[in-house]
Amino acid sequence: MSITSLDRLFAPNSVVLVGASDRPDSIGAVTLCNLQGAGFFGDLYLVNPKHASIGGLACYPSVDRLPEAPDLAVIATPPDQVAPTIEQLGHKGTRAAVVITAGFGELGERGIALQREIVAKAAEQSVRIVGPNCVGMMVPSAGLNASFARVPPSAGGIAFVSQSGALVTAILDWAKPRGIGFSSVVSLGDMADVDFGDILEYLADDPQTKSILLYVEGITNAEKFMAAARAIAAIKPVVVLKVGRHTEGAKAAHSHTGALAGSDVVYDAAFRRAGLLRVDTMPAMFDAIETLALTEPQPGERLAILTNGGGPGVLATDALISAGGTLAQLAPDTIERLNAILPATWSHGNPVDMIGDSGAKEYRETLEILLGDPASDAILVLNCPTALGNPDDAAQAVIDTVEVARSAGSRRNVYTSWLGEYSAASARKLFDAAELPTYDAPDDAIAGFMERVRFSRHQALLAQPHPAAPSVPDGSAATAVIARALSQGRRWLDSDQVDAVLTAYGIPTPPSRTVPDADAAAAAAEALGVPVALKLRSPEITHKSDVGGVALNLTGAQSVRAAAAAMLERTKTASPGAQIEGFFVQAMVRRPGAIELIAGLSVDPTFGPTVLFGQGGTAVEMIADTSLELVPLTRDVAMLQMQRTRIWKLLQGYRGQAPANLEAIADVLVRLGELIVAHPQIAELDINPLVADAHGVVALDARVAVESVPHCPAVLLTPPYQSILAAAEEG
Amino acid sequence: MSITSLDRLFAPNSVVLVGASDRPDSIGAVTLCNLQGAGFFGDLYLVNPKHASIGGLACYPSVDRLPEAPDLAVIATPPDQVAPTIEQLGHKGTRAAVVITAGFGELGERGIALQREIVAKAAEQSVRIVGPNCVGMMVPSAGLNASFARVPPSAGGIAFVSQSGALVTAILDWAKPRGIGFSSVVSLGDMADVDFGDILEYLADDPQTKSILLYVEGITNAEKFMAAARAIAAIKPVVVLKVGRHTEGAKAAHSHTGALAGSDVVYDAAFRRAGLLRVDTMPAMFDAIETLALTEPQPGERLAILTNGGGPGVLATDALISAGGTLAQLAPDTIERLNAILPATWSHGNPVDMIGDSGAKEYRETLEILLGDPASDAILVLNCPTALGNPDDAAQAVIDTVEVARSAGSRRNVYTSWLGEYSAASARKLFDAAELPTYDAPDDAIAGFMERVRFSRHQALLAQPHPAAPSVPDGSAATAVIARALSQGRRWLDSDQVDAVLTAYGIPTPPSRTVPDADAAAAAAEALGVPVALKLRSPEITHKSDVGGVALNLTGAQSVRAAAAAMLERTKTASPGAQIEGFFVQAMVRRPGAIELIAGLSVDPTFGPTVLFGQGGTAVEMIADTSLELVPLTRDVAMLQMQRTRIWKLLQGYRGQAPANLEAIADVLVRLGELIVAHPQIAELDINPLVADAHGVVALDARVAVESVPHCPAVLLTPPYQSILAAAEEG
Repeated sequence: MSITSLDRLFAPNSVVLVGASDRPDSIGAVTLCNLQGAGFFGDLYLVNPKHASIGGLACYPSVDRLPEAPDLAVIATPPDQVAPTIEQLGHKGTRAAVVITAGFGELGERGIALQREIVAKAAEQSVRIVGPNCVGMMVPSAGLNASFARVPPSAGGIAFVSQSGALVTAILDWAKPRGIGFSSVVSLGDMADVDFGDILEYLADDPQTKSILLYVEGITNAEKFMAAARAIAAIKPVVVLKVGRHTEGAKAAHSHTGALAGSDVVYDAAFRRAGLLRVDTMPAMFDAIETLALTEPQPGERLAILTNGGGPGVLATDALISAGGTLAQLAPDTIERLNAILPATWSHGNPVDMIGDSGAKEYRETLEILLGDPASDAILVLNCPTALGNPDDAAQAVIDTVEVARSAGSRRNVYTSWLGEYSAASARKLFDAAELPTYDAPDDAIAGFMERVRFSRHQALLAQPHPAAPSVPDGSAATAVIARALSQGRRWLDSDQVDAVLTAYGIPTPPSRTVPDADAAAAAAEALGVPVALKLRSPEITHKSDVGGVALNLTGAQSVRAAAAAMLERTKTASPGAQIEGFFVQAMVRRPGAIELIAGLSVDPTFGPTVLFGQGGTAVEMIADTSLELVPLTRDVAMLQMQRTRIWKLLQGYRGQAPANLEAIADVLVRLGELIVAHPQIAELDINPLVADAHGVVALDARVAVESVPHCPAVLLTPPYQSILAAAEEG
Repeated sequence: MSITSLDRLFAPNSVVLVGASDRPDSIGAVTLCNLQGAGFFGDLYLVNPKHASIGGLACYPSVDRLPEAPDLAVIATPPDQVAPTIEQLGHKGTRAAVVITAGFGELGERGIALQREIVAKAAEQSVRIVGPNCVGMMVPSAGLNASFARVPPSAGGIAFVSQSGALVTAILDWAKPRGIGFSSVVSLGDMADVDFGDILEYLADDPQTKSILLYVEGITNAEKFMAAARAIAAIKPVVVLKVGRHTEGAKAAHSHTGALAGSDVVYDAAFRRAGLLRVDTMPAMFDAIETLALTEPQPGERLAILTNGGGPGVLATDALISAGGTLAQLAPDTIERLNAILPATWSHGNPVDMIGDSGAKEYRETLEILLGDPASDAILVLNCPTALGNPDDAAQAVIDTVEVARSAGSRRNVYTSWLGEYSAASARKLFDAAELPTYDAPDDAIAGFMERVRFSRHQALLAQPHPAAPSVPDGSAATAVIARALSQGRRWLDSDQVDAVLTAYGIPTPPSRTVPDADAAAAAAEALGVPVALKLRSPEITHKSDVGGVALNLTGAQSVRAAAAAMLERTKTASPGAQIEGFFVQAMVRRPGAIELIAGLSVDPTFGPTVLFGQGGTAVEMIADTSLELVPLTRDVAMLQMQRTRIWKLLQGYRGQAPANLEAIADVLVRLGELIVAHPQIAELDINPLVADAHGVVALDARVAVESVPHCPAVLLTPPYQSILAAAEEG
């Protein structure tokens, strides 16, 4: 979308409402009322052939009779008039429209046809449209309220972009009494044209927008979304509430990896990689956005807690540890300084419990010392409304102390939670006015602190160098194998083909030989010198075990020759016409004490290829200890991916077992990413088990599926929009 | 505690405040102000030798000069005057006291001595005391506020009992503007005498108390607590906020089971077994208590969701599934009836999305139909403030519909969440007035619904027959073995002793023989007919592997004889004086495909013996897939215990593996419970691995530790207080 069209959408100089109405409570009337009430400075035109004027404004009978081409059209006509209206707008010269009109669904087949026509007309006329079936859009600072929302937003720094109209109305309603303001609110509706990616690209450059809130049901055009999201997240916090966490995909799963890479897990991976902060509930969403707006980037994750009561301190500590946070270990000097000012019964550690009868003086002095503690990165101040201290005075002492520290250059974040409500309400107002983050309960404050921690972690990930184009040792062997398999009409590669592909990408496999006949197989077994597995090679026979085409644990030339002969015999009967290419002889590797892992590839229809890592074995779906990443990955990303599983702990060594070679495992994940990027015919891949120990890894068993139609590309190959990053650097 | 003393505590006819003061903001003055302001009907006396009167009330110089023995004494004197005061009160005839006085800790050794003296005096004088170091206690309906809390509680149905004074002040402060009332509020302080068990026993019989809220830092006298809690939880909902979830115990862990049975996990087990509802945060605590107060017991767990917007419906569904809840599958007849009244685009399933322009009429008609749906057990009604429907009208329609259904006998719970704040506030007030549970966000509503589900599940568990005294096949063999081990000065039983103990309790072990010498060992190996393990038997040698006293995988008489001879030779050198009792020969059992489990026993210092179940192997602590139960257990309880682990799924069979014999596993857990109850000298026990498959279980390896000092008894052996249950049945 050209910036021009988006500028017209967000900052129009003139607006036309097509389908204006004077029927009370109709969408046309409510939208008109909102447009008039928002204080729009530009020209406002109405179109309705049945009226001469509505609400004191002249009505034009049609778009082509307007005196000029308005920057933005708001369409609230019946469904069958939308496409003709867009055509007229295009002719007139209007390039942006918000289509509020809904009800296409109710018209069945005809509705679907009408909606297609709208998209076609918009494309033909170069008119970009938001909607249809949306609540509209609002830009409070521009005096624009092109929506039928019941409650208008106040101006502020949050941009809210939502796929659900109901959520738009709910969140505006929620924000109103809290005084939370918005830079813009966009209801995307059916996203027939303008989508999240377009909006994010615009918002990155919008100076009004300090942080962004997305309500997502499903992403379309993931490549654009990811490129815009990764760029904007490096500049502004983006919080995402994505629903449908438990919606089962209709995807048929043929591999372990496919079964474990559920659609919502891919969203998780994509959001994490883009540096977005995902939340699961509406309350968490607001807490996150307020926290990020009111706090600074944090140098570290160590939290000091200051309280006038033991209970709340323990509550906060519980919540912090549960959320994976770090309780600061106060510096010895800090402890000594606190000893000098606090009563002998203070807690002598973190949480710093000053005990119940502490007042403003104690809060000020203690906080001053904590702000100077070199061993903590942020402070949470708690207060219980005891009879003997005044909560307001304590709050004011905290505010004053922070202001003094700020003016002396401290940027340390101070979070607050004044427990209670009756006595705490006025203290909360003081904190709001001083723009110090404050929360109703210690648990909520910890959640807020952890959002800041999570944001920092994501920023660190974003700052990683963009994975370069695959640096494959030599992919041509894999290319040839895959081409041959496709020419054979295979979906699943034969054992020797799997081995060739993995070997081409430097993934260790057991020693093996591909041989033409039984004698060569016997010689190969001899050469390998350990028990071997013997597998028949035939393009026609896919399920070899079913026809006795696999024999395990064969020792010595003699038994291999016998097994090969028996296989050929059985095949003659079972698959008379099958072409026999020979045998694949593979050493049966034993690695006692090694840990069984799974590493795999699958392709998400939205976000493209993904790499799976986790605990392996025959019951991987039930153990469900896996994590997913979009490709390509760096070794650092692969390490973080591994850390998100339970098996990670075991890989560190236990009970005398040496730690596994973690780099070797990470390299397999990186190489798999390179593999699927370089070979878009790969549809699925399972290495299970990938055994790992201190010496390295071996892919003991693997399956690879190919398809002649290449999969969708890796969305991360499109770099973050440089235009956004460049603009940020200038700004 | 006799009921008489507790009656005097909760409903005194006369109160004396010892340590009354007129110094502003002193505890003595604030407490007096609270006592006077609460509308106490009985006689109020003051004691302070320095004043003739305070606040218009006469002051007595000492307790013995009082005209009568007050029912309740409130003590707010300096620390060293508390014990003498209690002595005087005892002489006078007062039997209950609230000791607010704090500051013992600051006096160091002297403070500890003073606190001991108080307890001794109270016991000697039969005066029951609450505290010391507490905020006091309040019974609003009796006009009693014997505390220095800043905000007085309103009268209501919730009893709040807290170990943290700070939390008392915070929660009263929170409750005040919300109109939440209390039957009583007790600040337990240091719990030198009166504890949770005492208070629960009283509250069970208190008609004012409808539900109970506990803030717990640590339970003392677990036997009394559990007996009272299990009885009261069968009658009234009890919500517990227990802190210190992540506090590491100082307990030295010698066994896997000991390491995994952390103190907070035992609290979880105890609360669950007592039917208490544990919550982790203050907001969750209030939501739980409100939900339980406003809803009825539910016949099942299937939730129907009614909404006027898709987004909130998906949000609620996400939260429900995440919390382990069940989305109702509407009956076909219900769908047809909804088809008849809703627009064609309604969601045609659950959640029932009526679409955005639904008003009061649609809410009424749809809810009527859902209230009659035979396939759901409860309903959540959601509303988004769209421009076209009035939230208040919709709320009123819901209230009216529920009232009609109630008067027709329906007891189906209807939960509500009106999204937003600005437009939703008045609807929420309507719901509050109608006593329909309502929540700010769909997520919170689901949390509320799930509290009701959890309560039902706990009630079902409580209704289980009380485990009878152990019905051991024959424990005498185990008794003899344990006695012998103790006489040998062992902590860890020898292999043959472990086998004998497990066998006595019907826990399958591999075939084995206990033999006197090498020849007999060889014969035994022959008889067992499979590879065997050979272990030296000697009371002096504990770590047999260290001195070569264990040999594995021996096949045939010859190799057993050789191994035995080598062992004897090595022992002569390594432990010259050691007495050799012979050998233990055990079949090396292989169960390919069987699942490795751990089953164990350990003793919690507070709650007594516990049974651990989980995923076994050498890395059990790192895999951390275990669950804990207090003993004794029934088979049903054991099944529920197994269901709380991840390995449970795998035990159901997977990829062609038949399901494991679940009953056989459960029986091992039940038997372990019987074992530790019958033999209080057992300190620790690990069976790891306990292998399980379709054929049953075998304890492949086990360790048992004994101690001459018997462990504390199983708290569940004390039945729930019958007095409470009997009173409930009468009431």
